[in-house]
Amino acid sequence: MNLILFDTHEATQDTLVLNDRRAQHIRKVLRGKSGDTLRVGRINGPMGTGRIEQITDRQVTLRISLDTQPPPPAETDLILAVPRPIMLKRVLAQAASLGIGRIFLINANRVEKSFFNSTLVQEGSFREPLLLGLEQAIDTRLPEISVHSRFRPFIEDVFPQTMQQGATALLAHPDNAPTLPQACPPPLAGKAFIAIGPEGGWVDFEVEKFKEQGFLAFSLGPRILRVDTAVPALLAQLSLLRQIPPSSGRPE
Amino acid sequence: MNLILFDTHEATQDTLVLNDRRAQHIRKVLRGKSGDTLRVGRINGPMGTGRIEQITDRQVTLRISLDTQPPPPAETDLILAVPRPIMLKRVLAQAASLGIGRIFLINANRVEKSFFNSTLVQEGSFREPLLLGLEQAIDTRLPEISVHSRFRPFIEDVFPQTMQQGATALLAHPDNAPTLPQACPPPLAGKAFIAIGPEGGWVDFEVEKFKEQGFLAFSLGPRILRVDTAVPALLAQLSLLRQIPPSSGRPE
Repeated sequence: MNLILFDTHEATQDTLVLNDRRAQHIRKVLRGKSGDTLRVGRINGPMGTGRIEQITDRQVTLRISLDTQPPPPAETDLILAVPRPIMLKRVLAQAASLGIGRIFLINANRVEKSFFNSTLVQEGSFREPLLLGLEQAIDTRLPEISVHSRFRPFIEDVFPQTMQQGATALLAHPDNAPTLPQACPPPLAGKAFIAIGPEGGWVDFEVEKFKEQGFLAFSLGPRILRVDTAVPALLAQLSLLRQIPPSSGRPE
Repeated sequence: MNLILFDTHEATQDTLVLNDRRAQHIRKVLRGKSGDTLRVGRINGPMGTGRIEQITDRQVTLRISLDTQPPPPAETDLILAVPRPIMLKRVLAQAASLGIGRIFLINANRVEKSFFNSTLVQEGSFREPLLLGLEQAIDTRLPEISVHSRFRPFIEDVFPQTMQQGATALLAHPDNAPTLPQACPPPLAGKAFIAIGPEGGWVDFEVEKFKEQGFLAFSLGPRILRVDTAVPALLAQLSLLRQIPPSSGRPE
C-alpha cells in the first residue's frame, strides 16, 4: 500500500479517521507513529499527505492536505472476456495499477458459465481489487467497470455508443494476424480499446463481429498466455506504442 | 496445460508412459480417450504429438512422434531481485511463458532476508513453476536459473562474464530516467538483459554498479508496479521493441 485511499464522505474538512485495514496497515506494516507523514489520496480526486495526529489500537487520525493531481486519465479501455474469479481479481488489480479508463467484462462463447455466474461477477465486487491496484501504483482514478452478459448486444449496441471517431480498437487473436506494430504503427495516440479473449480464444463469429466494428486483429505470436500475463503484457505494449515517436529508430 | 512436457529419460523410443499429474490432467481435464492425439514436447527438445494408446486409472501410455521445433531461443535474460516466494513462483511461470533465456535471481539491499532464505530459493525448486509456464505457452526451452546471494560479486564478476559485445543491458528504475524507447530506440536486436529491482527499488550504490557495467536506466513512469505486473509488462515491451521496424511510424 503505497497510498492510503479514502472516499469523500470519510473525511471531514482536513481530518480523516481510519479504523479498518488501512489503520491496521499504518500500524503494522508502516509502523506509523504520531507526527509521521503518509501519502493519501481521495478516490477520483487529488492526492497529498496525511500527518498522523493520533494513533491507537483502534483508530488512526490523519490531518490531510491534498495538493497533487493524480496521473492523467488513462486513454485505453479494456474489453475482457470474464476469466475465473481468482484470476479476475488479480487482473483487475493489475489493470488498475497500470492505469485503465474503463473495463468491459463480457461474456463470450468460450467463457465458462461458472466464471460468469461467480459471486464476484454477479455481485460486482470489483472495488476492492481495483483499490488494491491503485494503492500499489499511487493513483486515485478508479476504473469504471460494466458487465455484459450477452456478447452480441455488447458488440452491436453498447460498443458503438462508446467508440469514438479516431479511436483505435485492437483485438488480440492468435494465428495469421499481423504483429501489434504492423496492425497499429506507432505512435498510438488518443483513445484505444483492447479486447482480450477467454482461454481458448474468441470463436470465429466473435472475431467477425469485432472486425465489423473496426477492430484490428493482431497476433501475440504462437505463445498462449494466461490472462494475468496477457493483460499486463498488452497494456504495457500499448503504453509503449504511445511513447514511441514517429521518427523512432532512424539515426538521430 | 497446452503441452505435455517430458524428460528424455521418461520416454523409451516412441513410447511415453505417464502416471503423475500429467496423466491426471489428461484424464480429468482433457478427458482423453484411446486414440486421441495430444501435443507433447521433450524438455529442451522438439515438440510433436502423442497418441493415446492406453488409458487406465493409474497410467496413460502415449505413442509419440516429435517433428516440430519449439519457438526460437529467447534473446532476453532477466536479472531479478528475489521477491516473496509466492510471487517468485508466479513470476517464474510468467517469464517462462513469455520466453526467457536465463534468469539471474539476485540479492539486493532491499530484498527481505526471509525472501532470499525461503525454501524455494535455498532449495532451488524452480523447475515446477517454469514447467507450468512452458506447458501454458507451448514451449520446451527451460530457462536456466542461477541464484546470487551477494550483489557485488554478481555485478562485478558474474555479469561481465555473461555480457556480450553489442548486447543491450537495461535497468528499470523510477524517476528522472528516460523512457524505455528513449533509452533503447527500436528496433532492439540481439542479446538483451533487463534488471528488475525489489519492492522499494534499487539503492543508489546498486544503480551505480549497474551503470558501471553499461546498464541503461529507464523509467516506467510514476506508477509503482508489483513484480507480477512489472515482469510481464517489461518483457512484453522488450519483445515489442524487437518487432518495431526502424522506419516505423512514418507514413508508408
